[in-house]
Amino acid sequence: MPTFRLDLGYDGSAFRGYARQQSVRTVQGELESALNRVLGHPVETSCAGRTDAGVHARGQVAAFTDDADIDPARLARSLNGLVGPEIVVTAVSVVDAGFDARFSAAWRAYRYQVLNAPSPDPLRRHVTWHVSDPLDLDAMNRAAAGFVGEHDFASFCRRAEARSTVRRVLEASWVRADDLAVFSVRATAFCHQMVRSLVGFCVDAGRGRVSPDTVSAVLAAGDRSAARPIAPPHGLILWEVGY
Amino acid sequence: MPTFRLDLGYDGSAFRGYARQQSVRTVQGELESALNRVLGHPVETSCAGRTDAGVHARGQVAAFTDDADIDPARLARSLNGLVGPEIVVTAVSVVDAGFDARFSAAWRAYRYQVLNAPSPDPLRRHVTWHVSDPLDLDAMNRAAAGFVGEHDFASFCRRAEARSTVRRVLEASWVRADDLAVFSVRATAFCHQMVRSLVGFCVDAGRGRVSPDTVSAVLAAGDRSAARPIAPPHGLILWEVGY
Repeated sequence: MPTFRLDLGYDGSAFRGYARQQSVRTVQGELESALNRVLGHPVETSCAGRTDAGVHARGQVAAFTDDADIDPARLARSLNGLVGPEIVVTAVSVVDAGFDARFSAAWRAYRYQVLNAPSPDPLRRHVTWHVSDPLDLDAMNRAAAGFVGEHDFASFCRRAEARSTVRRVLEASWVRADDLAVFSVRATAFCHQMVRSLVGFCVDAGRGRVSPDTVSAVLAAGDRSAARPIAPPHGLILWEVGY
Repeated sequence: MPTFRLDLGYDGSAFRGYARQQSVRTVQGELESALNRVLGHPVETSCAGRTDAGVHARGQVAAFTDDADIDPARLARSLNGLVGPEIVVTAVSVVDAGFDARFSAAWRAYRYQVLNAPSPDPLRRHVTWHVSDPLDLDAMNRAAAGFVGEHDFASFCRRAEARSTVRRVLEASWVRADDLAVFSVRATAFCHQMVRSLVGFCVDAGRGRVSPDTVSAVLAAGDRSAARPIAPPHGLILWEVGY
């Protein structure tokens, strides 16, 4: 049976998160309902990163295994006719048996966009977090550098998880582009609300409310209360997944 | 009596255009209703450019004259508490008597954003026109160069206007930024749907459907039917107004 890989983007504002839930609109729910209509029977999909309500994606990956004899390009067109314009399937391909969108992923990359300007921007209100205070990007980059490497990120995870909260962050940095401050972070995996929690810490460092040099102490505390408020979901974009 | 200048931006998707109309949501309607609440009596505003439904603004200017004794910064805060998040008042200032947002304007600048990529982008669907065909930016810039100067733009105006359709275009050019093709155009004034009509022509030139060298013939025809389909409203942003 062929395994199909779907690459997709979506506007998270339109959904109550990625993961299917009864009686609310979710990305997985819309996608599987469209697959059901196209294939004529239900399928279950895996995905690379279950984003929270309001979080967007440019490079989400979903996959399913099915005996459907359907051309990938035609499947993409049929799905786009059903799921648009809030979701777009940018590619469909047939991949090796055993490919799993979640467990085969080697890394995930996210971006977080802060609009650092005196006034909010109505045109970018769904894709940026507006912070009017001046931000010290050097301080934010010192904080970000402290995340890189393998650490126990319990202090930056929303839930106390039964499983390990040790993660390996491969890259983390801020760049300024006009009135945007953009955080790019890549890790083998993330725990729940970790990116938004890292961003909350960095922005507090950029505002001078916390020293960026406290990152290692916060990591060592292993306790959510040692961290800072988390950033809102709508500035976050699941950018790319590596396999 | 002081004259107040309001600088504002808005998400045109949320409105049926700028100009006040009975029983539909418009930018002017929301703004004047907020002014009424703050000042305690109705005022009438002028504006630099009455944008159509779906068209956005970053640098719209409105103005009114009133004997209100109110601090401009406080007026901005009060208005933003009422009109956000679809509209933002970025500045309020007291200007010379006789200032009129429309008639005092020396020029208007617009931007039009084309997403030139194989797939649409759910996150930018309200602020770009998605064109998947490859676009020849050189051809588009040759067409744009033909608009510059003083011409009768009747061929690029939606309505047959009783008044003159002669306008002076000061600048017109396309630049590529990643997957965006952005048109910047500045003129003393524009006639109705002129920018979208210029963009429609340029994109047809970029697709190879019309030669950019026909611009002068189309201008000379003085007839709407000589032009090309107009571009959709949601890629258009009123960018800046000069006084």
